[in-house]
Amino acid sequence: MPKVELRMQSGERKIVSCEPGENLLALAESEGVSIDAPCSGNGACGKCRVRLVEGSLDAAPSRHLSAEAYEQGWRLACEARVTQDCAVFVPDTKGLQVLDLSGSREQAAFGDCLKDLENSGISFDNPFLALPIAMEAPNADDPAPDGERLTRAIRKELGVSEVRIPHSVMVQLARTLRENNFTVCAKGERKGNVFCLMALCAPGDQTLVGCAIDVGTTTVAVVLTDLANGKLLSAASCANAQLCYGADVIHRIIRQGEPGGRERLQGAIVDKTLNPLLRDACRQAGVSPQSILRFCVAANTAMNHLLVGADAQSIRMEPYVPSFFRWDGLLARDLGLCANPEANVVLSPNIGSFVGGDITAGVLATRMWNREEMSLFLDLGTNGEIVLGGRDYLIGCACSAGPAFEGGDISCGMRAAPGAVEHVTMDDSMEPHLRVIGGERPAGLCGSGLIDLAAELFRTGVINPQGRIIREGSRVRRENGMARCIFAHPWESGTGQELSLTETDLDNLIRAKAAVFSAIETLLKAVDLTPEDIDRVLVAGGIGSGLSIENAISIGMLPDMPREKFFYVGNTSLLGAYAMTRSHEAYRQCCRVAEGITYLELSTCPGYMDSFLAACFLPHTDGSKFPSRHRT
Amino acid sequence: MPKVELRMQSGERKIVSCEPGENLLALAESEGVSIDAPCSGNGACGKCRVRLVEGSLDAAPSRHLSAEAYEQGWRLACEARVTQDCAVFVPDTKGLQVLDLSGSREQAAFGDCLKDLENSGISFDNPFLALPIAMEAPNADDPAPDGERLTRAIRKELGVSEVRIPHSVMVQLARTLRENNFTVCAKGERKGNVFCLMALCAPGDQTLVGCAIDVGTTTVAVVLTDLANGKLLSAASCANAQLCYGADVIHRIIRQGEPGGRERLQGAIVDKTLNPLLRDACRQAGVSPQSILRFCVAANTAMNHLLVGADAQSIRMEPYVPSFFRWDGLLARDLGLCANPEANVVLSPNIGSFVGGDITAGVLATRMWNREEMSLFLDLGTNGEIVLGGRDYLIGCACSAGPAFEGGDISCGMRAAPGAVEHVTMDDSMEPHLRVIGGERPAGLCGSGLIDLAAELFRTGVINPQGRIIREGSRVRRENGMARCIFAHPWESGTGQELSLTETDLDNLIRAKAAVFSAIETLLKAVDLTPEDIDRVLVAGGIGSGLSIENAISIGMLPDMPREKFFYVGNTSLLGAYAMTRSHEAYRQCCRVAEGITYLELSTCPGYMDSFLAACFLPHTDGSKFPSRHRT
Repeated sequence: MPKVELRMQSGERKIVSCEPGENLLALAESEGVSIDAPCSGNGACGKCRVRLVEGSLDAAPSRHLSAEAYEQGWRLACEARVTQDCAVFVPDTKGLQVLDLSGSREQAAFGDCLKDLENSGISFDNPFLALPIAMEAPNADDPAPDGERLTRAIRKELGVSEVRIPHSVMVQLARTLRENNFTVCAKGERKGNVFCLMALCAPGDQTLVGCAIDVGTTTVAVVLTDLANGKLLSAASCANAQLCYGADVIHRIIRQGEPGGRERLQGAIVDKTLNPLLRDACRQAGVSPQSILRFCVAANTAMNHLLVGADAQSIRMEPYVPSFFRWDGLLARDLGLCANPEANVVLSPNIGSFVGGDITAGVLATRMWNREEMSLFLDLGTNGEIVLGGRDYLIGCACSAGPAFEGGDISCGMRAAPGAVEHVTMDDSMEPHLRVIGGERPAGLCGSGLIDLAAELFRTGVINPQGRIIREGSRVRRENGMARCIFAHPWESGTGQELSLTETDLDNLIRAKAAVFSAIETLLKAVDLTPEDIDRVLVAGGIGSGLSIENAISIGMLPDMPREKFFYVGNTSLLGAYAMTRSHEAYRQCCRVAEGITYLELSTCPGYMDSFLAACFLPHTDGSKFPSRHRT
Repeated sequence: MPKVELRMQSGERKIVSCEPGENLLALAESEGVSIDAPCSGNGACGKCRVRLVEGSLDAAPSRHLSAEAYEQGWRLACEARVTQDCAVFVPDTKGLQVLDLSGSREQAAFGDCLKDLENSGISFDNPFLALPIAMEAPNADDPAPDGERLTRAIRKELGVSEVRIPHSVMVQLARTLRENNFTVCAKGERKGNVFCLMALCAPGDQTLVGCAIDVGTTTVAVVLTDLANGKLLSAASCANAQLCYGADVIHRIIRQGEPGGRERLQGAIVDKTLNPLLRDACRQAGVSPQSILRFCVAANTAMNHLLVGADAQSIRMEPYVPSFFRWDGLLARDLGLCANPEANVVLSPNIGSFVGGDITAGVLATRMWNREEMSLFLDLGTNGEIVLGGRDYLIGCACSAGPAFEGGDISCGMRAAPGAVEHVTMDDSMEPHLRVIGGERPAGLCGSGLIDLAAELFRTGVINPQGRIIREGSRVRRENGMARCIFAHPWESGTGQELSLTETDLDNLIRAKAAVFSAIETLLKAVDLTPEDIDRVLVAGGIGSGLSIENAISIGMLPDMPREKFFYVGNTSLLGAYAMTRSHEAYRQCCRVAEGITYLELSTCPGYMDSFLAACFLPHTDGSKFPSRHRT
């Protein structure tokens, strides 16, 4: 049997044997090694590149690889078969990142969000308690069982009538009490007349921790907070390890339907993504995972199903019915989260198969449900979701923008991570000026950079309104009837490979921006409004704070409105989840808001398809919708 | 590394490698192969015999093995070290037995028990339901999530306000509904205005199953019952796989205290004992383990702790404090039982560290708590527990009789299983006549056979009141100052080995019977009664229905009372557990009974030790307590 040595970018190495002819992507996946494969391994995306370092692989040159790249040893894992011993280099896809919260924008954003919600009357008291308990040790005169002794002490302290002791505490009870000389800290949740004990700790350990989680299709973030005072303790984020099962929710649902798929997809998000993040965040904060007593998860409907392990097949098939919108009573131990097993896992409520808890959490955080102004809320990540309205009504829809804004479907696309081009300007000589995250050499384009580059190419007349490249120059190449515009030559890029935007990429971008624009247009029409009626446009999500509103308007993605009405509001899903982690009332408010959002199914909306087709043009087939273009 | 081939009596074979010099008992244990080791492997009991078939083992002749046995290859696993390749035969210790319930005594006993309890006013209604539910499939006009659709249908059917869907149901919900065309059976428990869904099945599967479990220190039995009508569905019993960690609770608690011990001891009872029994009982009954919605476990306090995985160390140390007497809210999934994960596991309440739920279940089943007569209830298994009283009061105690009555501490002792001598008579020529369970050749002595043999040896003058062998004959041997009485020569026995009762065995038996007699005496004295005040003596437990009351009195184990007052009442623990499985009210009644039992700690009782020493004599130092002996 041939052996493959997988050399991870992190330095880790793994040697695996396999049957001759086995597919390299499947092999890596089965060994728990993540290789980015947004198309789920069907050869469409060209992202699952690995580099052959020793030996050989059976893999023909691919249309996704230049001749130089092939020469250098780059292969697509999904097209490579292992026939003899070899070693391959596997680029890092995960990049666990520590988010620095100290005095940062995030810290301020979380504080503001909470203050805003408190101003709208939501209480941030919560029923979690850390009770110091000192008991007499048992003796011949009082030989009551430990559980009874503890119950007695807690009842006396709190005046409750019942104390519930879960299995996880009971099994360690005798030891914990004796190791601490019967002086302990009892952590738990008070529910009326009942105290639900969740953890029994040494007397010094009194921290009650809540955890907000944003499970994005592409990126996952966790934030730990002190439930007693709301202080942010730590945060961490990384790529969703489900990426190797496809970039979008549909591919992942299909993979979930395979034998063992439920466990595999759930394992990817729980064991390979959340648990490492939780361990990391706990280490940073100096708390034990056992201290985490409550979670709130903001995720889209499909991600929610994959997370809890619920069969999601019906979500992708007409009439697009999920198993749940809202579901109470989920515990950390049901999911195997690295936390107190009794911790409640609250899911931000979903309102449709394609408008999920990430959006309702976002709407909660923006407080648009409590304002007189008319707000337009856009969450542009792998999927685009849009909610319009204010205090009187809310209406929402999802548009299948595709993953372009998070770097998917774009040949040199990548997430907004170090190495990503987040901002581009271009002079008339077509020479691009790039701003790269982390200040490194460019490795690819993230959403905001993509929009900038397209806008600049359009402004400088390199591309026409259909997205065809119509100028020539040192940065334009044409091969096999397909033109591309090079924004970094191999000697300029961080990867040593050419970075370019192809006409196919431009097609994908135009369809994505058209999906967003036409969704906004259809939503406005449904409530008989025009862009002029909108007071604020709130842009959130993975598209990133680097987004240039000017450029997004100039390519016809956002309506041509006064620029001062646009606000980038950050990761509102995480903000909303944070509020609901801290406050049961915030969760109940979010459920009320969710129930109040009318869900508009675009695919069955008359006029949507026409609106979409008319928007597949830079900026639009109807130029009168973009008057400011003519003013510049 | 040397290899050992373990050839199990069942025919199964296992080859394991180990470090040279590794202990064979520990090795077998770590590989999940059970070898009977009542003394927990400290060389005291001589029970862990294996037979060397090939190669060699480093094991010196043992005082527990005759020269012939050693010659034949028999070795004690606890004293054998593996130094080179070998193969050993491992006798069966488990013997999973199917209890035949059809028209049997058990069936009648269960029915009578239930009728008795119903007569005392306990309702056998229970809140478990199997609801047939037919729903419309979702469509564009009604695209509600599956969970909402199901909740709606159940609310309509039952008029409840809330339906709780557990994680185990939610993950399969979409598939189950679609596979059954939205016509299903919803099983669960109604709690007031809430329906707790526990399983969603095909519409034809409407069986609601309850499971009563008797976790004895030596033997474990399960009974499945139909929760709708109380019908017995099936039953099975086998040895407790914890036997390899010691015959008595103290040895096992010590082993639980070792690193990994909690998991090991829990694994032995759950994975190696209960789950095979449950699978077997389900197969017999033709039901799926998922249908088991409620358990009731009757077990002594230590067994309860080992079962749930609770640290039991404090039970064996002064002041003998357990973690719990009573504990609600335990679920099958907490224990990993092969059943519906949401099934409640009710533990029959304990009342002291050494008087447990097996006794309270037994007291419930006998209905002595509801009778005017004065009853004396004796449960004689590995431990002896005694409860005295009636409607007005109940008082109980535990006596450390040791495992003699279940075959422990006796050189040729064994459980009441096929091959066990259960009845012995002896003529004046000292020739024994044996009745063997299963009609086979004898393999050892069970409790009732042991009492018979001792009584006959005493009656025929072979032994004196101190238990010394004072006659000679072809069946008496003396070696190294120790005499023994052979009840089966090698050519008569089923094992090919001599079966005998030694003076050490007689010492152990005398101490065991003295413990029981003095406990009864002390208990009576505590409430100022004499044996004449007792109306009924109810004998239950592992000592078996073969017990001869006459012989038990003649050796001075039971008080010399009119024989018609004695009743063998069978496995009352299992009977009580069965009643509590069927009826929540029976469980509540058992808790009230348990609270009403005064616990007498014998070790601190003045006079107990004197009473015990006076009883260490056949039948007693005070012959006036056994007047009937002089009448015969």
